[in-house]
Amino acid sequence: MSRDESPQSAIAVRPTAQPSRTDSRRAFLKQGLVAAGGLALTPGLARAQAAAPAPAPAAAPQSPPADGPWSQTLGPGVVDRPYGRPSQFEKDVIRRNVPWLTATMESSVSFTPLQAQTGIITANGLFFERYHAGRPTVNPAQHRLMIHGLVDRPLLLTVDDIKRFPSVSRIHFIECPANGGMEWRAAQLNSLQFTHGMIGCAEWTGVKLSTLLGETGIKKTAKWALVEGADGAHMARSLPLEKLIDDCIVVYGQNGEALRPEQGYPVRLIVPGWQGNVNVKWLRRIQLGDKPWMLREETSKYTELMADGKARGFTWPIFAKSVITNPCPEMPLKSAGIYEIRGFAWSGNGTIHHVDVSFDGGVNWTRARLQEPVLRKAMTRFTAEWRWDGKPALLQSRAVDDTGYVQPTIAELRAVRGVNGIYNNNSIQTWQVKADGKVFDVQVA
Amino acid sequence: MSRDESPQSAIAVRPTAQPSRTDSRRAFLKQGLVAAGGLALTPGLARAQAAAPAPAPAAAPQSPPADGPWSQTLGPGVVDRPYGRPSQFEKDVIRRNVPWLTATMESSVSFTPLQAQTGIITANGLFFERYHAGRPTVNPAQHRLMIHGLVDRPLLLTVDDIKRFPSVSRIHFIECPANGGMEWRAAQLNSLQFTHGMIGCAEWTGVKLSTLLGETGIKKTAKWALVEGADGAHMARSLPLEKLIDDCIVVYGQNGEALRPEQGYPVRLIVPGWQGNVNVKWLRRIQLGDKPWMLREETSKYTELMADGKARGFTWPIFAKSVITNPCPEMPLKSAGIYEIRGFAWSGNGTIHHVDVSFDGGVNWTRARLQEPVLRKAMTRFTAEWRWDGKPALLQSRAVDDTGYVQPTIAELRAVRGVNGIYNNNSIQTWQVKADGKVFDVQVA
Repeated sequence: MSRDESPQSAIAVRPTAQPSRTDSRRAFLKQGLVAAGGLALTPGLARAQAAAPAPAPAAAPQSPPADGPWSQTLGPGVVDRPYGRPSQFEKDVIRRNVPWLTATMESSVSFTPLQAQTGIITANGLFFERYHAGRPTVNPAQHRLMIHGLVDRPLLLTVDDIKRFPSVSRIHFIECPANGGMEWRAAQLNSLQFTHGMIGCAEWTGVKLSTLLGETGIKKTAKWALVEGADGAHMARSLPLEKLIDDCIVVYGQNGEALRPEQGYPVRLIVPGWQGNVNVKWLRRIQLGDKPWMLREETSKYTELMADGKARGFTWPIFAKSVITNPCPEMPLKSAGIYEIRGFAWSGNGTIHHVDVSFDGGVNWTRARLQEPVLRKAMTRFTAEWRWDGKPALLQSRAVDDTGYVQPTIAELRAVRGVNGIYNNNSIQTWQVKADGKVFDVQVA
Repeated sequence: MSRDESPQSAIAVRPTAQPSRTDSRRAFLKQGLVAAGGLALTPGLARAQAAAPAPAPAAAPQSPPADGPWSQTLGPGVVDRPYGRPSQFEKDVIRRNVPWLTATMESSVSFTPLQAQTGIITANGLFFERYHAGRPTVNPAQHRLMIHGLVDRPLLLTVDDIKRFPSVSRIHFIECPANGGMEWRAAQLNSLQFTHGMIGCAEWTGVKLSTLLGETGIKKTAKWALVEGADGAHMARSLPLEKLIDDCIVVYGQNGEALRPEQGYPVRLIVPGWQGNVNVKWLRRIQLGDKPWMLREETSKYTELMADGKARGFTWPIFAKSVITNPCPEMPLKSAGIYEIRGFAWSGNGTIHHVDVSFDGGVNWTRARLQEPVLRKAMTRFTAEWRWDGKPALLQSRAVDDTGYVQPTIAELRAVRGVNGIYNNNSIQTWQVKADGKVFDVQVA
């Protein structure tokens, strides 16, 4: 390493320490961290110095950290992982199911580990599953999508056909309306993964349904569509034609690669902002009609049984919702000090306008920061600083979307809907932080 | 299925066919598709009717497509894939290497299958690899990041420490500056994956380096930083301090999950818009100094040997670049008709302003559409309609970023730099479409 040469730089470089910007940041940190004990954000330093087997030097860090064994050997070359996978040290970050939740595992759900999701994109391998007859293995060469009924020209499309149409890519969340359903009666599984893990967000690529319907034509009497999957359940729903034309997409791409089988390979419907169930997977048929079909999945299921015994149906949009993901039951606090509170907010009716967080169960609120990009009908990341004094606390987040809708409390929802239902619980989540740093799923009056 | 009930809809629904919008789309399609033979975009229909074993009905599609075997059985439940994987039918969509390209596979590269990438996010499993001593298996519990040198307070951080700092998420591309390097002398591997596959784009989550440097303080004499990895090569580079403070991020998250080992697990440096090599993986050390270190990877490598024998060094930013991904050698055309041309554009100096495409080797240009979101220092998807008459054609794309920089031709680049180099080939790519629809990598004068 020679220090006596100057670089032949091809671009202008003005390497200054920019003390003003840095000092500004340091002032923030000093206020937040240093005042809290000097190393509030670096507990690992203390740990590294104290722990016996730690490879880091026990003395003040004036020399580089000791090499790990991985620094002293050649690792595998570029030949052993033509398709990659996570680190072996992340083996606990997986989708999980609740064995007692459903009668069979073929008609059940696995939950996204939201506590480990770092950005607005849900990794394809961790995107929640929901099956009604298990996961079909569809051969794309044999799969067909038919569009028929009240159309001028019925159409039978191969997957290659669908890929040739003008394409769009959109980042949208999909949430099962039963997400949080166990909370209506406070099941308290004490897990973010199980209270909020029936959601994922991805970049979807496909063809607008309006493009395909432009090809078939639409008869004047058409007002509804039946959309049907190729799974063993032939899972089907009725949707108003207006929504199909507005922003629905027949997708084949998910986060840059082919749709996963779990998410409907080779083609599924994306119904932006509407409950997951209508985003029909393994899409095989779209039939236009003049009335809804009143199918099983919109009569006996995916309706809300109100306190008076009547059912509320066709409640498609996901209303504004949010949850704090750090801390949460799976991510407890370690010691008093400054923390960045992190979470997600989303609305099926538009864009997140702002998120407030409370550390005292909803008495006082403070505005969170939103991470860019803030996208329509997509998960939005929010963060807020919090100095934890080591005493019990009640953490909440409250989302407001650009329609002005404010995420309600569970008490407000129960006052209208009772506790019979399992769907559309978009209430404010309360995490109770105890003095030892453990976090619990609680409900406050 | 009963048709005699009305839905109890909780929201107002106005299901109209919106004929004006639909007609507008149909006009586009009629112009594009129907005029080209009625089924130019639906060759599969003809195939389905002709091919013997196709499950689709041979008659006009007045009845639903026949069930595949997957529609007649229960598939696996939610228990067999706690971490998901692609469909078995996508087994050819993988990273690939070029065995003769490097002396060993531990210091080599595997290429992203860009021809199959559907959106701006590169799937984690397909993100290109570049190793200098193979892929280290770093234990995050033992890994440390040291920040020292010309700082006020040296810091030794655990991975947990790094995760506690205020976080940011950003979507950025990473491109190896050797991407396209074989094209300087027209190696013509005839593959998009090998000419442009050393790039990927992901949502990265971590802590701004300016935040960490705010914690350590910066001495007034500091102007440069050495950034070093924990791999067996201890891969290291010099970077100007100004860039580190501007927008560099120490990241641990990639597309919502932990960084992959291939991309630097547990922590790497993201240097937005700058050549991949400086985005040091398995980051273990940042040392501030007053001069660049003139390391191997910035003297004998990652410099450009000019025609006069002198080397151009420290050429960090990726200048505006684009490429058509459909069609390409791996994605030939099938028959004359209307196609959507698709591709990616990116600039390490800012945001893509627009992309033009040419179908006659650069004589005439037409403006492409950009897919939202168009993000700074991120891949941007562009599309354009093209009616292929079945005759040979020369397809090109040309990106312009918001600095006004225009992607150059290979001839323009060679006039300045000669053909000795292997780095920073951001020239316009020409795909030759032959009469049979096959696509070839060519260079035009």
